Amino acid sequence: MNNEFEWIKSVSQPSYRHSSVKVGVGDDAAIYEPQKGYEQVVTVDTMVEGVHFKKETVPAKATGYKALAVNLSDIAAMGGRPLYYLVSIAVPKRGWTQEELREIYEGMHELSEKWHVDLIGGDTVSTDDALVITVTVIGEIKSGRRLLRSNAKAGDVLFITGAAGSSAYGLEKLLEQGLKAADDPSLKPFLKAHQEPEPQLQAGMLLAEAGCRLSLNDVSDGLAHEAKEIAEASGIDVIIDWNRLPIHESFKEYSLEKQESWVLYGGEDFQLTGTVSPEDWESLSRLFSSKGLPLFRIGSVEPGSGKVYIEREGKKILADKQGYHHF
Amino acid sequence: MNNEFEWIKSVSQPSYRHSSVKVGVGDDAAIYEPQKGYEQVVTVDTMVEGVHFKKETVPAKATGYKALAVNLSDIAAMGGRPLYYLVSIAVPKRGWTQEELREIYEGMHELSEKWHVDLIGGDTVSTDDALVITVTVIGEIKSGRRLLRSNAKAGDVLFITGAAGSSAYGLEKLLEQGLKAADDPSLKPFLKAHQEPEPQLQAGMLLAEAGCRLSLNDVSDGLAHEAKEIAEASGIDVIIDWNRLPIHESFKEYSLEKQESWVLYGGEDFQLTGTVSPEDWESLSRLFSSKGLPLFRIGSVEPGSGKVYIEREGKKILADKQGYHHF
Repeated sequence: MNNEFEWIKSVSQPSYRHSSVKVGVGDDAAIYEPQKGYEQVVTVDTMVEGVHFKKETVPAKATGYKALAVNLSDIAAMGGRPLYYLVSIAVPKRGWTQEELREIYEGMHELSEKWHVDLIGGDTVSTDDALVITVTVIGEIKSGRRLLRSNAKAGDVLFITGAAGSSAYGLEKLLEQGLKAADDPSLKPFLKAHQEPEPQLQAGMLLAEAGCRLSLNDVSDGLAHEAKEIAEASGIDVIIDWNRLPIHESFKEYSLEKQESWVLYGGEDFQLTGTVSPEDWESLSRLFSSKGLPLFRIGSVEPGSGKVYIEREGKKILADKQGYHHF
Repeated sequence: MNNEFEWIKSVSQPSYRHSSVKVGVGDDAAIYEPQKGYEQVVTVDTMVEGVHFKKETVPAKATGYKALAVNLSDIAAMGGRPLYYLVSIAVPKRGWTQEELREIYEGMHELSEKWHVDLIGGDTVSTDDALVITVTVIGEIKSGRRLLRSNAKAGDVLFITGAAGSSAYGLEKLLEQGLKAADDPSLKPFLKAHQEPEPQLQAGMLLAEAGCRLSLNDVSDGLAHEAKEIAEASGIDVIIDWNRLPIHESFKEYSLEKQESWVLYGGEDFQLTGTVSPEDWESLSRLFSSKGLPLFRIGSVEPGSGKVYIEREGKKILADKQGYHHF
């Protein structure tokens, strides 16, 4: 690509969904008008070829989709509504066709359309090595609503918005079979979970609207790891009740150790997990039911000092791994 | 680095300068409260090892300084005041010591202190290849104040906030002599211009406060290139008057071609260039004088179609290069 300007124009949105965008792509910086009574939520995440994605397991379009999804998930974990995103991409001089690069942006456009998020800026640079894609997402949340990791209290109920382990299981199949794993229809939801994860924004916003004290995290590095972040930030212990966990039928033919590796320590699920008082759990549970959204009670919070236990058949075992780490 | 959490804690700020930061580093996303009557300005830029910086020409600390500076410069080019920044860094498994990585953050901290910018979030990932650093900066500008590239009109005066070419000249000396170029005191300002450029935030904010119609750009890809961006966005021609350009004394012993390569086509100067009506030029010039800030009148704007001419000894020559391109 010799003309960065033409390239940027070709991957930009023709117009913006939010009239709050005063200056979008094409000047030194973007300008937008914040909504009165709202605070701004901002997050940034980087994905590196060979570390976070490989062409052998994630198609180009899904790479773009996922790069935006992981950031939207962070906004979801704060209960925010995403509004804008910026994309900075380091493109290798070799190994990626213009068409594949365009597909990366198409993947982002597809997801951004679903959640009405506007691409308002970015940067395109070259690199001699791996493709690196960094997405910044800005959203909003009503002033004063904070779904922090540090909000958990002893006595709380632990919940999750969906089954964990899908992405890790999907990745395992992709590493075994490559992209032709998609030929097996029973694997579809797991491949989708790994390649094009759905950020739980609706659940996050519903939790924020509920208005009660809530601790919240998105499951990016494994359920045990996220529970540990909550436990440490809140100075309590979290007990995950194995028998309450929603576990995919297809997992059950595998050893318990395998199941645990996906469900407790598998990364990139992007479900939301958190804690709430037992009283608020009841109304939250009803609220989610009324919207047709799943919400599972999977454990409890006890006085403690930042530890996570797995409870099974009456025995509590300390979660021994810290989860899924790229770094 | 095995413990991302400890690492992030070690490079985080102990406290935030702005009380508007409600949630900083350490949760899924940062939360801040926007100021009433202000719009938000946001920009992101990526620097890649081997493409934008090399250990041989830029010390680790300066790499951090520069990564933040180039983004602050984009905020300056919109007349904004920077408030927060987020850093996403892909760290190679080999080649960088923990100490060097810490120096990168020290460089950012040093510059952020100067401009009261708070580090509120980021991401740290690993890579097999080059170090990649992406900085997002968020700032604010009074609602309705827009210093856009597209604001130029025929009859305008072209200005610049300082001498161009310093960074390109400094880089040339660094490529010739390596970091020992610093032993020559006469080279100091040029090495500084390349390694730790100063974003022209004070000038940018003063231009925004002036309240008049202004086009503005920061000189990141060479003066001729930036003038062309203004010319194209505004649908006019820009005439750069060579004899009015502030040119470093040390350049004058070199051929005209060499001088041009630095002054017109040398990148990463991060001065601001723009246009304003002749009437407003007079008051702007006085305003800058009164604050002790330089502002040079270096040309004019004519009706046209997006071209840039260099005028010298009564002759106008079309600027033939598009400037300095990493991409």
